Amino acid sequence: MVQTSHSILTVGSLAFDSIQTPSGKVDSVLGGSVNYFSIAASFYTPVEVVGVVGQDFPEAHLEWLASRKIGVSGIQRVPGKTFHWVGSYDHQMCEAKTLSTALNVFEHFDPQLSEVHRQSSTLFLGNIDPELQTRVLDQVSSPTLVACDSMNFWITGKPDQLKNTLKRVDILSINQAEALLLSEQTHILAAAEVIQKMGPSVVIIKRGEYGAMLFTRKRLFIAPAYPVAHVVDPTGAGDSFAGALMGFLTGAQAHRDLSESNPEKWEELLRKAVVSGCVMASFTVEDFSFRRLMKLQISELMARQKELIRMISL
Amino acid sequence: MVQTSHSILTVGSLAFDSIQTPSGKVDSVLGGSVNYFSIAASFYTPVEVVGVVGQDFPEAHLEWLASRKIGVSGIQRVPGKTFHWVGSYDHQMCEAKTLSTALNVFEHFDPQLSEVHRQSSTLFLGNIDPELQTRVLDQVSSPTLVACDSMNFWITGKPDQLKNTLKRVDILSINQAEALLLSEQTHILAAAEVIQKMGPSVVIIKRGEYGAMLFTRKRLFIAPAYPVAHVVDPTGAGDSFAGALMGFLTGAQAHRDLSESNPEKWEELLRKAVVSGCVMASFTVEDFSFRRLMKLQISELMARQKELIRMISL
Repeated sequence: MVQTSHSILTVGSLAFDSIQTPSGKVDSVLGGSVNYFSIAASFYTPVEVVGVVGQDFPEAHLEWLASRKIGVSGIQRVPGKTFHWVGSYDHQMCEAKTLSTALNVFEHFDPQLSEVHRQSSTLFLGNIDPELQTRVLDQVSSPTLVACDSMNFWITGKPDQLKNTLKRVDILSINQAEALLLSEQTHILAAAEVIQKMGPSVVIIKRGEYGAMLFTRKRLFIAPAYPVAHVVDPTGAGDSFAGALMGFLTGAQAHRDLSESNPEKWEELLRKAVVSGCVMASFTVEDFSFRRLMKLQISELMARQKELIRMISL
Repeated sequence: MVQTSHSILTVGSLAFDSIQTPSGKVDSVLGGSVNYFSIAASFYTPVEVVGVVGQDFPEAHLEWLASRKIGVSGIQRVPGKTFHWVGSYDHQMCEAKTLSTALNVFEHFDPQLSEVHRQSSTLFLGNIDPELQTRVLDQVSSPTLVACDSMNFWITGKPDQLKNTLKRVDILSINQAEALLLSEQTHILAAAEVIQKMGPSVVIIKRGEYGAMLFTRKRLFIAPAYPVAHVVDPTGAGDSFAGALMGFLTGAQAHRDLSESNPEKWEELLRKAVVSGCVMASFTVEDFSFRRLMKLQISELMARQKELIRMISL
């Protein structure tokens, strides 16, 4: 119990990605939202992953995850092929264009949480079918902090199910375009307000190369992205942003009742967590897959974090 | 002499604008870079305007400018029609599309500075033909701070003349796309470095709805735009940004030797000036022409400035 009470339980995709960007092309590299999320979060706190892979997924990678405080006991290996995403980015590198999605083993994924995982207090529901998000949430006995991500595919495809999930969510981390789509608004300020009414008291809007906006019920905080000289591949930027954000919050081990007992401190923690998210995302985009994160040193992370804070200090 | 030594001398266009945006359409409203610039700057410091208008330009507007510390003795009225710009913005409202430009009296504009104006210490060369910028600069005996703006039209049309101007400029305020064009770079970090080598030690890159980046030789500061719920017309945002920026710097009356005597203080002043620019631009876009600026109260300006600073404070 002690183990998971200070860790994050997360569910999402493990995948192979084939990606083309103006910087190059890679075929069947490791990817998936939960990979980016958990590697990023593991810089700050232990993570427990719930997910599914096929027989083609390398055991060595699961071992690597396990070697760095990332619990893989919740990752089922089932007959069949791992989820495979094929996408490309144009010169602007703003939005991914999905060329093909082979759900494979993900199609019949029905997450069953272990007894230990059911006791988790912090939960991150990665960008998957909102029905699966709810099913995971249903199994956790008394979560104290629930965050989630989503995307246009679910917003348009399963809006009611997503809204059901959102009712039980504290923090939503979502792209700008998707926030507008979800809220049916044309401006981000109105969008955040509408989404807050759906459930999440904290709405974090990711703006790609322009950073992120943090809406709480009290305040708006705007963080710029750390400017990266050479963006290789934006894939996973949002997932690693969320990983660092949640890792930072959980690592501080203080969120559990802060939002009620010391709201000012909680707000400050959220702002710092958003900056951590921006910094982590800036490393992710420097290479394909999560190669950059896999070799990232804590000292580099801290140095860039300090640098970004300096860039926004008057 | 006292008058101009604490004021900004600026040259640029006074115009009629006909504009269509998703919020509406206006025909032949007052516009021109120097109008936006000087009204914005006048919240902080006196301004002296050098420009030209035709016989159709309303005397009442010149009187209104004069009523608020904006010297209009340098505005020539000549036979013919005032400069007229016709443009439109699409749904994104990022970039203006020029539909027609009638230079009219501006075509033969040859600015002749008065004796008093020649003694100016602070100079802002608005977005006009770089040859005219140089001609104005040549007439000022010993400027201590020279800033300028430019645009794609001059960058591609008169690159050598623009580079001649830039050699003598301390601060360049320019759009992101134009910074890339001028520097022939694909990334903003590289662009700023290249532009600094052209002359300006301070490069300010305007990013529209995402704010601005301030590059000095020591540091990068990133300021977000103040989020405006309903953008009516982006015209003049960049000019009023520059006006508030320069007004703030000049109003502080301290820049004259700060950059050498107290570089830390100078850098701090620049960062605050950029925030002032972002705030002013946010008011400008709330209505067509400079209608919003004409009725803007100091108290509103200060309140929003405080609010934006809060939005970026950790």
